[in-house]
Amino acid sequence: MIKEIQGGVCAPKGFKASGVHCGIRKNKAKKDFALIVSEVNASAAGVFTQNLVKGAPVILCKEHLKSGYAQAIVCNSGNANTCNKNGIEIAEKMCQMVERVSKIKANDVLVASTGVIGQPLNIAPMEEHIDQLYSLLGDDSKSAAEAIMTTDTIAKSVAVKFTLGGRECKIGAIAKGVGMVCPNMATNLIFITSDVAISPKMLQKALSNDVKSSFNMVSVDGDQSTNDTCVILCNGLAQNKIIEEVNADYKAFAKALNYCTVKLSKMIAKDGEGATKLIECNVFGAKSVKMARGVAKTVIKSSLFKAAMFGADANWGRVLCAIGYSGEEVEVERVDVSFKSKAGVLEVCKDGYGIEFSEEHAKKVLSEDEVQVNINLKIGKCKASAWGCDLTYDYVKINGDYRT
Amino acid sequence: MIKEIQGGVCAPKGFKASGVHCGIRKNKAKKDFALIVSEVNASAAGVFTQNLVKGAPVILCKEHLKSGYAQAIVCNSGNANTCNKNGIEIAEKMCQMVERVSKIKANDVLVASTGVIGQPLNIAPMEEHIDQLYSLLGDDSKSAAEAIMTTDTIAKSVAVKFTLGGRECKIGAIAKGVGMVCPNMATNLIFITSDVAISPKMLQKALSNDVKSSFNMVSVDGDQSTNDTCVILCNGLAQNKIIEEVNADYKAFAKALNYCTVKLSKMIAKDGEGATKLIECNVFGAKSVKMARGVAKTVIKSSLFKAAMFGADANWGRVLCAIGYSGEEVEVERVDVSFKSKAGVLEVCKDGYGIEFSEEHAKKVLSEDEVQVNINLKIGKCKASAWGCDLTYDYVKINGDYRT
Repeated sequence: MIKEIQGGVCAPKGFKASGVHCGIRKNKAKKDFALIVSEVNASAAGVFTQNLVKGAPVILCKEHLKSGYAQAIVCNSGNANTCNKNGIEIAEKMCQMVERVSKIKANDVLVASTGVIGQPLNIAPMEEHIDQLYSLLGDDSKSAAEAIMTTDTIAKSVAVKFTLGGRECKIGAIAKGVGMVCPNMATNLIFITSDVAISPKMLQKALSNDVKSSFNMVSVDGDQSTNDTCVILCNGLAQNKIIEEVNADYKAFAKALNYCTVKLSKMIAKDGEGATKLIECNVFGAKSVKMARGVAKTVIKSSLFKAAMFGADANWGRVLCAIGYSGEEVEVERVDVSFKSKAGVLEVCKDGYGIEFSEEHAKKVLSEDEVQVNINLKIGKCKASAWGCDLTYDYVKINGDYRT
Repeated sequence: MIKEIQGGVCAPKGFKASGVHCGIRKNKAKKDFALIVSEVNASAAGVFTQNLVKGAPVILCKEHLKSGYAQAIVCNSGNANTCNKNGIEIAEKMCQMVERVSKIKANDVLVASTGVIGQPLNIAPMEEHIDQLYSLLGDDSKSAAEAIMTTDTIAKSVAVKFTLGGRECKIGAIAKGVGMVCPNMATNLIFITSDVAISPKMLQKALSNDVKSSFNMVSVDGDQSTNDTCVILCNGLAQNKIIEEVNADYKAFAKALNYCTVKLSKMIAKDGEGATKLIECNVFGAKSVKMARGVAKTVIKSSLFKAAMFGADANWGRVLCAIGYSGEEVEVERVDVSFKSKAGVLEVCKDGYGIEFSEEHAKKVLSEDEVQVNINLKIGKCKASAWGCDLTYDYVKINGDYRT
């Protein structure tokens, strides 16, 4: 049984975190420098952006993961350290300063940066605040979650407990979105901690598999970031029998992990830049999971559909249109479409054709802050879900002048 | 030599057009029913949406093109006649009513509809106004162009003259955009007329080839319409030697055609829903035309880049980011990026890294109503251009409640 608990990345045994304002961001009220540390070296795994343009921290982080182990995560917001000539050098210095204060070897430190691309990242503010950041390490997942935010309006955090062979185990995570989020290894930064004992190989397998149904199914704007990073540290302090193969414990761990990642996925979608509502697209009756995911992602990405959701307009033609250009071999004349929210269900399309509905009821259903669009392809048994948000004036406002 | 002239689709010999308000649209000031007729049967060709969900008129229009000949184009706006159970029947009736008034055989009539998807199209307003529409046929390209508009703010039209073997030849065209425009057989409706003599086979070849560098390179929102239709009628009244193979005349015709289609492409992009400016993305130094087109289309589609252009923000990191997820095998550390407008040139990225620039100069360059983003990949000799627009508050407003 999976039970939600408090504590974020500090919920699992042996993890501490902190976050401070060091000065990369101009606004002194906004933290911009975060650290997560495990008491002992941990199994580590990661998934990263597939963008050819990769941030320097992504390149270094992948390098540091090659050993399969790591013990700390350091991160700044306000600058992505991407497309800068000295980017790798700066990312290395970030790891080295963690070594200096903590004695954790620099290549056991994972590193991430988020913010504007193509402006030199000044190392000085971090040099000046690394001692403070280290000294503040404690049960402060919240400060770390705040320090990795960019245009996020709320800090995103989750933690769960569950048992493996009678041992209580925990997983905690923090994440930031919320623009440049595309359904293909998405969502900028996600840091996950756990006290489960698992081999690096099985951990990488679990994470790589997990993102397919969680972070890879989130879209805010269809743009794929250069810095997307999802890393996980598992330090084994729960003292469960170490997971070294696909067995019942592996599956239980994967299930708990997916609980956390899906919850964060929804939080990221709901807090999408300028969003007023969470849109969940559920596709049923597909011939394959690939087909279900393809359709769900295409619908959730459609600018026209997203704008209609902002206007609470039941323009289901745009849903069908997006299904049609998804590249998946659906049979249009079988497709059913309906909307659902707390206010009720609204059937709009049956066997590919429109059916009459009350505009008044439609407005009610679509005016809720969480809306499902449910699509039944009726040609198979596979399903998938994707999460996104509406396209609003504020998305345009936020992104019309983000840099200056 | 290609020279622009007046007259739109009525510029070529033997073509007449008309447009009226028949009542499909509620607003009586908006025309919604258009007709284009050639004096004699004409070689005909078309390219259509690749969306699996196809409007009934698209299905019927393709059927009527199978003979390679046609003599009229009938079109309504205000309703796309798509995802309706009786859609084909209604589209057939539209062709039959043209036969009734004109004696042109119904299967020589091309048909198109544009507007909302999934609401039954009432044939009665058209039945009541077909006599009037036919009686008004004349040099009235403008009324036809107006009658096919949906959210377009201006009627789009172009015409040119040129010579083939000493004979004066003409091409004319009208088009409508301006939402649901994706770089993959785009742009809803384009009707082209010409008095050139050319075989149906060569005409289809010319048109299919043309759209790759014109309408397929336009993006407003990345959504691909169910009703995209581009058809051309060539009635041969210019009495040039009929084009039946790829020769000098074919190339001269193709060049004149491309002049018209690129001009319309830019007009459609500039009038994109809510747009305040035309963005032209030119990619140079690609290894293949495919690579150049792939990069240009990805950049022009990026919501984040489009929002930055609205804010006149030289956020070139978003350009590099989009290049990186284009799926094309560029070498990031070679890429140069600059912006250009009437106000001057702004170099922002050299060999994949940022270079310093004046923010004041940047604002000036990006505040013009036509802005180029020029990308040199520096790994080959191929190039391509794509056209789009900025993402604005008004795009969201227009699409937040289009249907009701």
